Amino acid sequence: MNAPTAAAHLLPDIKLRDVPQALIDALQARFGVQCSLAQAVREQHGRDEGSLQAPPPSAVVFAQSTQDVADAVKLASQYDVPVIPYGAGSSLEGHLLAVQGGISIDVSRMNQVLSVNAEDLTVTVQPGITRKQLNDAIKDTGLFFPIDPGADASIGGMSATRASGTNAVRYGTMRENVLALQVVTASGEVIHTGTRAKKSSAGYDLTRLLVGSEGTLGIMTEITVRLYPLPEAVSAAICSFPSIEAAVHTVIQTIQLGVPIARVELIDHHTVRMVNAHSKLTLREEPMLLMEFHGSPAGVKEQAETVQDIATEFGGQAFEWASTPEERTRLWTARHNAYFAAVQSRPGCRAISTDTCVPISRLADCLLESVDEVEASGIPYFLVGHVGDGNFHFGYLIDPNDADERNRAEQLNHQLVARALSMGGTCTGEHGVGIHKMGFLLDETGAGAVDMMRAIKRALDPKNILNPGKIFVV
Amino acid sequence: MNAPTAAAHLLPDIKLRDVPQALIDALQARFGVQCSLAQAVREQHGRDEGSLQAPPPSAVVFAQSTQDVADAVKLASQYDVPVIPYGAGSSLEGHLLAVQGGISIDVSRMNQVLSVNAEDLTVTVQPGITRKQLNDAIKDTGLFFPIDPGADASIGGMSATRASGTNAVRYGTMRENVLALQVVTASGEVIHTGTRAKKSSAGYDLTRLLVGSEGTLGIMTEITVRLYPLPEAVSAAICSFPSIEAAVHTVIQTIQLGVPIARVELIDHHTVRMVNAHSKLTLREEPMLLMEFHGSPAGVKEQAETVQDIATEFGGQAFEWASTPEERTRLWTARHNAYFAAVQSRPGCRAISTDTCVPISRLADCLLESVDEVEASGIPYFLVGHVGDGNFHFGYLIDPNDADERNRAEQLNHQLVARALSMGGTCTGEHGVGIHKMGFLLDETGAGAVDMMRAIKRALDPKNILNPGKIFVV
Repeated sequence: MNAPTAAAHLLPDIKLRDVPQALIDALQARFGVQCSLAQAVREQHGRDEGSLQAPPPSAVVFAQSTQDVADAVKLASQYDVPVIPYGAGSSLEGHLLAVQGGISIDVSRMNQVLSVNAEDLTVTVQPGITRKQLNDAIKDTGLFFPIDPGADASIGGMSATRASGTNAVRYGTMRENVLALQVVTASGEVIHTGTRAKKSSAGYDLTRLLVGSEGTLGIMTEITVRLYPLPEAVSAAICSFPSIEAAVHTVIQTIQLGVPIARVELIDHHTVRMVNAHSKLTLREEPMLLMEFHGSPAGVKEQAETVQDIATEFGGQAFEWASTPEERTRLWTARHNAYFAAVQSRPGCRAISTDTCVPISRLADCLLESVDEVEASGIPYFLVGHVGDGNFHFGYLIDPNDADERNRAEQLNHQLVARALSMGGTCTGEHGVGIHKMGFLLDETGAGAVDMMRAIKRALDPKNILNPGKIFVV
Repeated sequence: MNAPTAAAHLLPDIKLRDVPQALIDALQARFGVQCSLAQAVREQHGRDEGSLQAPPPSAVVFAQSTQDVADAVKLASQYDVPVIPYGAGSSLEGHLLAVQGGISIDVSRMNQVLSVNAEDLTVTVQPGITRKQLNDAIKDTGLFFPIDPGADASIGGMSATRASGTNAVRYGTMRENVLALQVVTASGEVIHTGTRAKKSSAGYDLTRLLVGSEGTLGIMTEITVRLYPLPEAVSAAICSFPSIEAAVHTVIQTIQLGVPIARVELIDHHTVRMVNAHSKLTLREEPMLLMEFHGSPAGVKEQAETVQDIATEFGGQAFEWASTPEERTRLWTARHNAYFAAVQSRPGCRAISTDTCVPISRLADCLLESVDEVEASGIPYFLVGHVGDGNFHFGYLIDPNDADERNRAEQLNHQLVARALSMGGTCTGEHGVGIHKMGFLLDETGAGAVDMMRAIKRALDPKNILNPGKIFVV
């Protein structure tokens, strides 16, 4: 997912905190031209790719070093003013909105690779580097960073939201792939968590606590992530199915057999039609799996044969191979453009995206019941999913000027989340909670766990200045 | 590692907190025969497999349900009395010692499998079940739980120390394999963290915060872990090398090539000699790698051929295969008994064990410099390691009555930890911090991160009753 999802609408009950002129003066004195008060810059930093809107931050600091971040936080702390870290701006759940006012700390200029340890399969980067920049920078090492959320997000943002995407079924998510952090705390202190060792039992797992904390516990200034050897062989295939059910059962059986498939994406027949129109393709307009296999030549062949056998059993047809990098790129570009294709299919529409993830055994039930519901609603939609992980996204294509349609789409989302939770799943597989899913988080984990999160937040950020108003209200 | 490591010696500056008779009376009223005051029972619960000693807890509650745990914690909280969770008693770093007094909560009777979700490759268990009990209980599902720290530890204890062991190179550690928890908090409340979904971005990762928290943030009462399909083919092999360096370089290259080896253990020539004597084997008394490959028949063959080629390049000889389960069991039993074999090699000795873990590229340097050091010291030792992860254990075989020898062994450990940290490694790969490694933790992560841990502890356990005096002093 990598584009605006719904018509922006102003949040209710915004309570802006005071940003004293003395702080602005101090920031300008410290940062000079690195501190912008320009309306356009502030507005750009006060929104993300989601559907919510709030007044922009009062200033934007373009940090160029850890010291810059620490100094900005220290100044903000002195005046009890919120700070909101900003990377590529591609988050979806209102993470970047200054819902309590404050200043934005833009780390996009902190985009250097600090050290590549190819022998250890690790790299340490600054938070503003994007995943594509990172892969470009290391392309001569024979290694790659696999996490691919679609958008060319920053590694800092991906860490902060515990992102994943198409390759997670094989390579895991940011949870598994961040090894160590340098972090600026709420008081502006610089701390380190984790090491480059592959495993450790040394005290609380602060790294994993910070990954997915959405900027509310600290601002990441250095990130060490795992890399992987570029697979010797890569092969991609598409396969069409008579029904979503047949496609999903193929996936379930593939996962249950332990086939180390690298990517397996579901695209429903509506979405294939939209993709064909948008990307000038002639894919069969039936539910489709888009798969990729990584490994040795023999391993890839064996995996592909196993999956082909399973698919055939469920009525899969037209197993088509894409072995050249160009063909693969064409297919994955079509997949990544599914969102745009969908939005173009209904002129003037906006999409409200869902992000549930369920245990694989419940994937068919959860998907099919939800498809019935959206079909009955009459709202046009698209459906894509990282189904190997049990994670999928509906996009309800609504008329932004039709409040009733928006409400019905939100109602569909609520029903979908309730269904996923009742099946042992989660309200968000990869986008995060932000502002939009606070209620869902409470439903999912219960008041006790959210109170524990709140206690940690209060302990580590007593002035509530680190991206306040996200995940839960303190 | 699964046995006593060094001569027990009383901890200095023990500060016991008051355990009022009123609490004992209340526990006896609530728990009846489930609450024991017997000296032998208390003493058994006041020690672990490590070398430190403290006065026993004042009482032991044998919990049989989450409600039992919650009620015991609530009563203890009422009187500000420490509680120490107890599983199989196999931890190594003083985790179970009542260093501030208090009561032990034994969860070993909470050893049921609560639900197997074979299709999702997950199982939910009570914390007292041991890894062998778990694998016995699920043996008809075609699945297994791979984490194997040597000792038949409880899943609760393994979660609390973020344990790993021989299979971690392929299957990860408890960090990667615990999906969800039910936990009793410091106030006796029952909360839930995580879901059975494979991934989630729903708020702070409390599951990962609690895993490895050594009982200081909550007591786990239900644990959901990942399972794996039993591999279609398994093959084990041993290979001898002219030097530790040659063996280690074989491992480094194997990992760097991305070979998905399931186990790769180093045993040095001293230890092979000890193992031969103890287990009546005739292994070549040279540095040895003990390896296991899991996968499809073709995949296993391919992996094994790749590793054999690498080993040959480094002078590896006598690649011997063990393909039957009986042969494999014989080899792995010998490996797991290495500790006992070593201790028997010097009558009356005790072993002080180390647990450093370094990035794989530094493994040879770290190991070889440390071997030189211990050789120069004249102290007999053994050396084994989960070298695929960069984790290894020296055991210094000391005369427990020789204070000078103990001090020199502790000094060797200090030098080893300093070396590992300077190489980007950790003081503990899998045993945890407990009492013994508090200083090392500070060296490793710095005062800032330890202060963050302390702030979390204070927020979640304001009376400091959950296993106090472990990891850091509040």
